[in-house]
Order: sequence, then C-alpha cells, then structure tokens
Amino acid sequence: MLTRVKSAVAGFMGGIMAGGSSGGGGNTGSELPLKFPYMRPQFLGLSPDEIECSADHIARPILILKETRRLPWATGYAEVINAGKSALNEDQACCEVVVARRRPMSYCPPSTPSKTPTDSEGLVFHYWALFDGHAGSGAAVVASRLLQHHIACQLQAVIEILRNLASLPPTVLALTRAASLRGASGMPGSPSSTPPPPRFFTEKKVQHESLVIGAIENAFKEMDAQIEKEKQVYNITGGCTALTVVYLLGKLYVGNAGDSRAIIIRNNEIIPMSTEFTPESERQRLQFLGFMQPHLLGNEFTHLEFPRRVQRKEVGKRMLYRDFTMNGWAYKTIEDEDLKFPLIYGEGKKARVLATIGVTRGLGDHDLKVHDSNIYIKPFLSCCPEVKVYNLTQYEHGADDVLVMGTDGLWDVLSNQEVAEAVTTFLANCDPDDLHRYTMAAQDLVMRARGVLRDRGWRITNERLGSGDDISVFIIPLMYGNRQP
Amino acid sequence: MLTRVKSAVAGFMGGIMAGGSSGGGGNTGSELPLKFPYMRPQFLGLSPDEIECSADHIARPILILKETRRLPWATGYAEVINAGKSALNEDQACCEVVVARRRPMSYCPPSTPSKTPTDSEGLVFHYWALFDGHAGSGAAVVASRLLQHHIACQLQAVIEILRNLASLPPTVLALTRAASLRGASGMPGSPSSTPPPPRFFTEKKVQHESLVIGAIENAFKEMDAQIEKEKQVYNITGGCTALTVVYLLGKLYVGNAGDSRAIIIRNNEIIPMSTEFTPESERQRLQFLGFMQPHLLGNEFTHLEFPRRVQRKEVGKRMLYRDFTMNGWAYKTIEDEDLKFPLIYGEGKKARVLATIGVTRGLGDHDLKVHDSNIYIKPFLSCCPEVKVYNLTQYEHGADDVLVMGTDGLWDVLSNQEVAEAVTTFLANCDPDDLHRYTMAAQDLVMRARGVLRDRGWRITNERLGSGDDISVFIIPLMYGNRQP
Repeated sequence: MLTRVKSAVAGFMGGIMAGGSSGGGGNTGSELPLKFPYMRPQFLGLSPDEIECSADHIARPILILKETRRLPWATGYAEVINAGKSALNEDQACCEVVVARRRPMSYCPPSTPSKTPTDSEGLVFHYWALFDGHAGSGAAVVASRLLQHHIACQLQAVIEILRNLASLPPTVLALTRAASLRGASGMPGSPSSTPPPPRFFTEKKVQHESLVIGAIENAFKEMDAQIEKEKQVYNITGGCTALTVVYLLGKLYVGNAGDSRAIIIRNNEIIPMSTEFTPESERQRLQFLGFMQPHLLGNEFTHLEFPRRVQRKEVGKRMLYRDFTMNGWAYKTIEDEDLKFPLIYGEGKKARVLATIGVTRGLGDHDLKVHDSNIYIKPFLSCCPEVKVYNLTQYEHGADDVLVMGTDGLWDVLSNQEVAEAVTTFLANCDPDDLHRYTMAAQDLVMRARGVLRDRGWRITNERLGSGDDISVFIIPLMYGNRQP
Repeated sequence: MLTRVKSAVAGFMGGIMAGGSSGGGGNTGSELPLKFPYMRPQFLGLSPDEIECSADHIARPILILKETRRLPWATGYAEVINAGKSALNEDQACCEVVVARRRPMSYCPPSTPSKTPTDSEGLVFHYWALFDGHAGSGAAVVASRLLQHHIACQLQAVIEILRNLASLPPTVLALTRAASLRGASGMPGSPSSTPPPPRFFTEKKVQHESLVIGAIENAFKEMDAQIEKEKQVYNITGGCTALTVVYLLGKLYVGNAGDSRAIIIRNNEIIPMSTEFTPESERQRLQFLGFMQPHLLGNEFTHLEFPRRVQRKEVGKRMLYRDFTMNGWAYKTIEDEDLKFPLIYGEGKKARVLATIGVTRGLGDHDLKVHDSNIYIKPFLSCCPEVKVYNLTQYEHGADDVLVMGTDGLWDVLSNQEVAEAVTTFLANCDPDDLHRYTMAAQDLVMRARGVLRDRGWRITNERLGSGDDISVFIIPLMYGNRQP
C-alpha cells in the first residue's frame, strides 16, 4: 500500500526483526506487548532466517509455497516485499480449512482454532484471505490470525439452518395495515371498486446465501471491534485492508474491504469478484457523512470537492465543485469556507481522505489522526465488506479456471486483462496434473508485477515501472470445489 | 404510481375536472391558486372535452399523438389513465427543443420558455421528460412545465466551455504537500532512496460531459427548491418522480429520480439507461440517515429491518435483522427498541419508507408526513437524479434502434425483454419511412401493459393482470440524433 499514509506514521524501523518480534507492533514505541509477533504466512513454513532474508528490499526475492507443502485445492501462492517503503512486508495472508462447530451461542472464543476439519459436528468451510497493512503491520498480523474464527463464530449462529438446506426459516403470515397503504382504490365507477379483501403479507424470505453474507459482514465488524478493544492491552499498530474468500456448501463468498481485488478467470472470460473502496469510489458516502456530521471535519476540512486547491485570492470568483449529491461538476462562487482543505483530495493512487489515507475500508486504524491535529480518520472508514457470491456448482470448471486474489501491488501495474492472459498462458504450458502449477503461476504474476531491477528502478514489460509495493497473490483453482485433490 | 401513498393523502376527488382546474392542485382544499391548471401534455393538443373523455376509468382510452402533430425526431408517445386509483392521470410528459442562451448569470427566469430553437446565440438541446405524480398532480404538472428551463439555466453557466469543445477548463499546476503524503520512501538501502523531486499535481481534468451531468443534477435540485418556495403562494400538491432525457452535442443524458425507467434497444440488444430508486434499492442510504439522525424517526420507527413485524412476546428471542452496513441477514436478540415500526417495510411494489411512500427520489412532497404524526418524509427523499450518458455518435443507428421511456405502470407488468421484443416486432412490421410508426409502437406498448377488461379486471397475455396504474411511454428513434427528420 505504497504512499498510503504519512511517513510520520510509518517511519523508519530500527532494523528488521530486531528482537524477533518488534515488527509486529510497528514503531510506535508502545510499552504494551504484541498480540502476535510479526511473521510471514504460517503456511509458508519459513524459518526466522528465511523470514529475515525475505525482507531484502534490493533483491526482493519472491517467496512461494515449498514443494513439500500443500494448500487446500492445490492453491498457489507467491509474495514479494516492497522496494523500501517499509522495513517489513505489511501484506499478510491466510489459508485454512475451518470448522464452525455447533455450540451454545453464549461465548465463542475466536482465538481457538478448530484443528480437525470434519463436518460430523459442524460446518466446514475453506478460507483464503489477504490483508494489506499500513502504518505498521500489527492490525494485518492480528486479522490474518483471527478473522477466520470470527467468521466461524458468526456461522455458528445459523448452523442449524445451513446444515439442513430443506428447512428454510419459518414463514409467518402477518396481517398488516394493507388496506390503508393501498391508495385510493375502491372509487365509484372503477372496475376495482369492490372493497379489497384483507391482505396477508408473508414474511420476507431470507435465502441461506444471505445468512452467510450476513455472517461474513458481521465477522469483519467483530474483528474490528476486537482490535479496538485489545489495543488497550496489546500493541496493535496501524490498519489493514481485508479480502476474504469463503467456500461453503457449493458457493464462493468473496468479501472485500479495501483496495485488494479478486477476479475469476473462466474459459478466458474475466468475472470481477470485488470492487475497490477508495477515496474516489466512496467519495459520495464520505462527503455525505462530512455534510451530516461536520464536527468530524474539525473545522479544517470542507466536504466539497474542487478540481484543485482554492486560493484566498479566488474568494468571490467561480470555481467548479461537486458535493455528495453530484457525479457531475458545476460552478459555485467561492466563499471563505471553501478555502478549507477538501475532505477528498487527489486522483487515482494519490487520492486521500482528510489528506491522510488512500483506502476507505478495512480493519484497525482506530488511533489514526490527521497529522498534527485531533481529527480522527476512523469515522470515515468502514470495516464492512462487500460480499459477492459465485455458485461453483453451476459450471463445469477446467483445470485452468481459477480465482486470482491480489493486493493492490499487483493490480496497480497489471490490468485484469493482463493478469488473465498471463495466468491462462502460463497454465496452458504446465502439466495439468502438476499440483504445483498454481504456485508457479502465482510466482509468474508476482514477477510480472515486480519486474526486474534496472537503472535503479523496477521495470516491467514495455519499460513501464514495476510495483514498489508489497505484492501477494493467491491463485485458487475452481475445479476442486466439488472434489478434493 | 399505484398504492404509493396512503389513501388518506390521495383521497377521493369530487368529480373529474370540476371547475376545469381543481385537479391541478389535488384535493387539499387549499385556498391558494394553482400554479398551473391540470392538463394533459401540451403536445397532444387536446381540447377540454377530449381531456375529460380521456379520464374514463372504465374504458381507459389510450391517447396518442395526432397524425397532424409531430415531435422532434419523430418521437412516439402514448398514455392511458389508471383504473380508478385517482380521478386524474397523475403522469405528466414534456417534449421540447430548448435553447440555453448566453446570458448574464445574475438571474435566469426558469418560467420563460425559449421559443425559437436556434443555436446562433446559445446552445440547443432536445428534451423529453416523464413525471409520475402521487398524492395529487400539482408537483408533476409544475415540473412538466418548468424543469427544462432549470436545465437551460444551469447549462448557461457552462455555455462558453461547451460551445467551444477545444477549450477545456484551464489547467493549473499546483504544488502540493506531495512529499509529506508519500509515505516512508527514502529509506536507507532502498533503491528509491534518492529524495523525490517536488511533485506537481495538475488540476483534476473535468470533462465537458461532467458539466452537463452537473447541470442536470443541479436543475433537479433547483426545481425542487422552487416547488418548496412556491408552495407558500400556490397550491402545489403531492410529489412526483422525474425521468428526463437531454440530447446535447451528440450525447444523450438520461437523468432519473424515481421509479420510471429508460432503456435503449439497439440491434436487439437492451441497454438499461436508468436504475429505479425505491425503498428496497435505497435501503442502506435511508437506514444510514436514520441511524445518524435518529430524531428523523420520531421515536416511532427503527432504522433496522426485520423480515416481518416484531411482536412484544418476542422480546428476548432471536430474530433476523439487517442494518445499513449489511446486505445479508444475521440474528440479534430482540429488545424493546425493535418493536418500533421499521423505517423500510414490505417487499417489491409494497415496500414503503416510514409506512408511507414507495418511491425514494423525486420532486415535491415537502409537506408529506407519516399518517397521524409529525414525522416528515421529505428528509428521506432525494431530489437528485442519477445521470447516465449514451454517446449517439459512436454507433450507426438503424430505424428500429430506439430509446423507450416509461413510467412504472409500464415496467410493473412488462419486463425489459418483453418491451424490447414488442417494440422490435412492431417496428419491423411498419413502413420504415412512416414517421408515425414510433407513436404506433408506443400505443402498442401501452395496450400490452394495460391489457383488456375481462371479468372485472384488466388482463394481459398469459392471463396476467394488466397495470391499473397510469401508463406513459415515449419511444425515441436514435437515428435522428445526427440528422433532423
């Protein structure tokens, strides 16, 4: 998440892995212990030495899954550290098979992993997740260890309904004030002048799918609340985006809060499975909040957007603007109020909320303030994911049909089309029976996004600049959805 | 807009066209004069007798453009009154060629129509609009007479830029606090450790298209503000949806606030040009507002949604709910607070905001309150349209490529696909040189949606119920975009 937050927040860390754990908490000089030490994804099985070597900002070695290790569905994974923006790789990843057990609802400890995947006593789901941290790796590390358990905990509440697909939630007929809501029918001379019979409204039907979506949505909120709460006793720095994929009962649920991205590549077709949440894509939501709760702007920011900074000498002149109601632009006469810094400012990767942060959804960031002020950023951030659903059972998937998850380090330099072409070409040249092919394809993608070091810069094809950001990629083959490899 | 608002608001009117003008103001018994008398679209050229005959709720005659009359681009039009829900047809329509003149910005009187279409001194645009009124026809009549002039007035502010396509708004280079926003680059050992040169950010480029969109957006707001203001001195009843199409400089701009719909049918392909704004489609926006400004709910409503009404005996038990952050559903334990009536209630055409209104964007409704309470609906309604753009110059359009605009009376009973098939089939059987063919096709559509009176009810194909609502349809051929018929 290059150039996402101010250098004042990220700062310089006094040596990689000093003390073996200081990285997990970032550099805030907190006296509190870490919740979890900094590390790389557990499934990589790296030694402390290997982890230290991986953080070489000059060589930028690409880490992949060892041949001896295997993820569910033969999932491929590769990652690389940034070119120097932070000492540690602030991306984190997780891939697990999780069991949501039937349990009393009173308490479900999210930090107790379910070790044995079995559905005899619960509901099994597959889980993949990427977290892209900023201003420290604490939130990303914590989320990569715990979010799946919050999802399991939320699914427990609906486990009885989900396990028995035939028993939909009870439908209740409720008599409502139907007639009074029907408008002026029953007029003389009208064909519908017979008084209508009292109407019965059935209960709104809630699909099983909606219960899983609700569980994922609330799990993100619970994860964020846990980070906020545990910051009282642990050193949990920064914030992170979260992109999760849950496979449950034949469907993939892709939940996204942030600017990572997931796409499905199926038979050369690209199916976007997430949208990015940035100052530009969420401008109207943020401006609406700033308009309704102006105290959140601390008398230093205006909720209006202008094409550039307004200068004092322009007061009384006309300038283009747009507010939360507008997608277009119109002229207004500049007033003193408009000299304040805009809530949303900048374009593309440089766009910022409150001049501070370039991503508008994610976990953590509870302490983040506008530099040198008492204005909190968190009220403008949402921890709620958008969840998209893909029914795996509706298609016959071939060995080259995959879901690609990547942090913004990948998508900043490669388009969906470029990624799809690279993956499709790569897989076509692999032995279809080689279960390592998806990791090799992930490695190829990370290589294409990072590029090679030339003339003091990272270059990719056509002399474009490579990504200097952390890059993490999962490639999930879809053919295993209904048969375990 | 059948069953949209309570019968208490719509009421029964003491005779059709009593006094020749009482309809324009509805039935509030106001002592104030009407701003405009009730009538049918001016382009139909109906006599008072014809207007009275058109309001026959039994025969429901379909009104079409007379052969002697012609709309720009040979546009077709047809309409029919409802089956008895209101004495008058609460739909209104407008079609004009309008000139936005170069003028001093100090004052532009919106009620002064520009009579002579010429672009020697201004900017000519084509304009089509449908308004679907509720709780009286006043707002719909006023909007159908004035909205186009508000658009002209807003366009005047950008006329210089739009007329000279080559001169984009001036681009200004502004030095920003670039370095401080760039994060922790410049770290020792990093390839990017050279201090970056100060960065220049160019002014955000605003396309001409965005200026037209902004003009339409603000015109809707100005129209709504005018209705609010003039209600002090005129009797302007109810509210209305608004669907407008503006053709300007090679592009169609479709602005929609409400639940009317526009689609383009091109070479058998359907291109949706609007989305509907209803309690269900805008649930999250409305719940967010209710959550942030709970006083708007008047202590009688809850911003949460439940699948059905919660009963007192269910307090302490679990029930599904969703809030403004959720698309899925999850369980919560019912509290006393949840016994309040839900802000959003009902499904499909029966969905209501505050148990009162079934559409969430439009003009007017400033006085509308929840029945028997002091809770205003207007804060939850938006007068801002969504504007979609279609570039007419990018395609060669044939004589059967059209844009169809219809009020919800059409779309409630016919799908996009059914409308497209009906129009395509109908036009294929007409003489391509018959300029009346688009009106005949519009008549055919209205007929298909209304159906025929059988067994005391209106029936369409497959024994389905026909629409008992007012129905209005424009069919605009696209081939005339770049050549006048």
